[in-house]
Amino acid sequence: MKKIINDPANVVEEALAGMAAAHADLINVHVDPHYIVRKDAPRPGKVGIVSGGGSGHEPLHGGFVGMGMLDAACPGAVFTSPTPDPVYEATKAVDGGAGVLYIVKNYTGDVLNFETAAELAMADGIEVESVIIDDDVAVRDSLYTAGRRGVGGTVLAEKIVGAAAERGDGLAEVKALCERVNANVRSMGMALNPCTVPHAGRPTFELGENEMEIGIGIHGEPGRERLPLEPANAIVERLLAPVVEDLPFDAGDRTLLFVNGMGGTPLIELYLAYAHAEKVLTQRGITVERRLVGNFITSLEMQGMSITLLRVDDELIELWDAPVHTPALRWRA
Amino acid sequence: MKKIINDPANVVEEALAGMAAAHADLINVHVDPHYIVRKDAPRPGKVGIVSGGGSGHEPLHGGFVGMGMLDAACPGAVFTSPTPDPVYEATKAVDGGAGVLYIVKNYTGDVLNFETAAELAMADGIEVESVIIDDDVAVRDSLYTAGRRGVGGTVLAEKIVGAAAERGDGLAEVKALCERVNANVRSMGMALNPCTVPHAGRPTFELGENEMEIGIGIHGEPGRERLPLEPANAIVERLLAPVVEDLPFDAGDRTLLFVNGMGGTPLIELYLAYAHAEKVLTQRGITVERRLVGNFITSLEMQGMSITLLRVDDELIELWDAPVHTPALRWRA
Repeated sequence: MKKIINDPANVVEEALAGMAAAHADLINVHVDPHYIVRKDAPRPGKVGIVSGGGSGHEPLHGGFVGMGMLDAACPGAVFTSPTPDPVYEATKAVDGGAGVLYIVKNYTGDVLNFETAAELAMADGIEVESVIIDDDVAVRDSLYTAGRRGVGGTVLAEKIVGAAAERGDGLAEVKALCERVNANVRSMGMALNPCTVPHAGRPTFELGENEMEIGIGIHGEPGRERLPLEPANAIVERLLAPVVEDLPFDAGDRTLLFVNGMGGTPLIELYLAYAHAEKVLTQRGITVERRLVGNFITSLEMQGMSITLLRVDDELIELWDAPVHTPALRWRA
Repeated sequence: MKKIINDPANVVEEALAGMAAAHADLINVHVDPHYIVRKDAPRPGKVGIVSGGGSGHEPLHGGFVGMGMLDAACPGAVFTSPTPDPVYEATKAVDGGAGVLYIVKNYTGDVLNFETAAELAMADGIEVESVIIDDDVAVRDSLYTAGRRGVGGTVLAEKIVGAAAERGDGLAEVKALCERVNANVRSMGMALNPCTVPHAGRPTFELGENEMEIGIGIHGEPGRERLPLEPANAIVERLLAPVVEDLPFDAGDRTLLFVNGMGGTPLIELYLAYAHAEKVLTQRGITVERRLVGNFITSLEMQGMSITLLRVDDELIELWDAPVHTPALRWRA
């Protein structure tokens, strides 16, 4: 295992110290339990948006804490759900009296631990709602998951829902919005090479010299099939077809297209894939109105990518375009 | 070779098509010859800032084209200098009558081809100045380079000089500023694993299962030494010591600390390294006032990192903080 780490047991803690030092203008990192909270939390009267999950998917979620996106993120150990305690503490830290929404990727541990945290917070009188993101069309039921996995759609949900909370929407509204995003977003990923979890010390799976895995999960969970490596355009089509057909996306639909790197794939390959994905959609009569290309929900140093497609309308576009200021995503209106 | 590509010969062209599609609000991508130009170029009365170099280091340079940074970037083939023609054409495209500054990483091909382009442009009556960035303390003379190599300092120079041009500084001023940045910035990198150039099809170098290369170049050029893999903190100290001692940076200095990923290293490792680097500097009495952590000057999927330290003053900080709006770097004042 070749990594820039010290003790495999301390990777998350030490990385969080780095995030705290590097982004002290935007976030505070709370230690024991670990959570990342927006510098100006709690914001009175604003719905708090909290997410979290296993570490190793950076910048998700900690990199999305800040103005216009998350109020807090709870990182577990690498590829391991956060326990209820940090989620509960983060909930109290961001509660501005208007309630808190949890955005939870659909992994069994995450779902259970966020549920427990919600019960603890509600016992304190904090109103909590949760939305489970399950946008991955690759497989139903998987390692760690009953139902579909939550993947790239989570990034889009956090941005859009964060913007709605920022403009003052109430808890019921942001919950409904988050459900609307989840209902309109689909994703699928693939890998060329696996990653190695520091405390495991060996790759999460094995792929042959000329093999790729289609439908991979962000923890290296098995996908749909292993195939001989193909040209980028064929890979893009293999990912896009089930994404488009699942919702389904139809001619005339307006969309946001997100090509995401798994962490170890050069940006040049993501842009190359993006070009073909947009072309394929355009040929189907689907309009790409907004786009995101880069490493946003990763799997350590895994090589591969995922494609996420979100059906948008004027409101979703307005919320996507709204200002955001976080470590990993920032722009002006 | 496992890559998300079609034909190895078309990687750069296809990736540029993706950049063009993904960032049509910020940039135009000119084809034949290839260069990326700011959407609103030329800006009358503004000094044009142009950079470029081999592809494979994305987001450098094309990702830095936009408001507050570069007016144009000229990408060569992977790890290959752009020819004079695209540089000359880009120069004409951004010339707003106030002259053009070339920011050139110190690689022999880049230096020669930008010089030739400058001659062509000057024959057209465009005033052109050049600054060579040579911040890599690892080695003197190298594959592709006489003298020191230009690496991470280039990113900082492009941001700071871009901000100065944006506020209206003249050509002589931005040139002097760029020289000042170069005189005050030092870098060193390391690799855990090599990368593979698409048209070569095999890794640029070989490292043993438990080896790392200290002082690596961004094209995999040999560094100072190969050593058994060490803990992150020891690696950080190995990079920082020669960086600090070279300028030298002294107690009381104010700095910008930039921990850069080589493309295949998880963000979590970069933050972990950042934490220790800032700690070591603080212990030496060096103040870190600004920071940048992430993949900004990469070497395809190489695993490793570089550390860049820039001595700053009030003016450099003001220019660093100034608004920037490019595909890869964007923030508000």
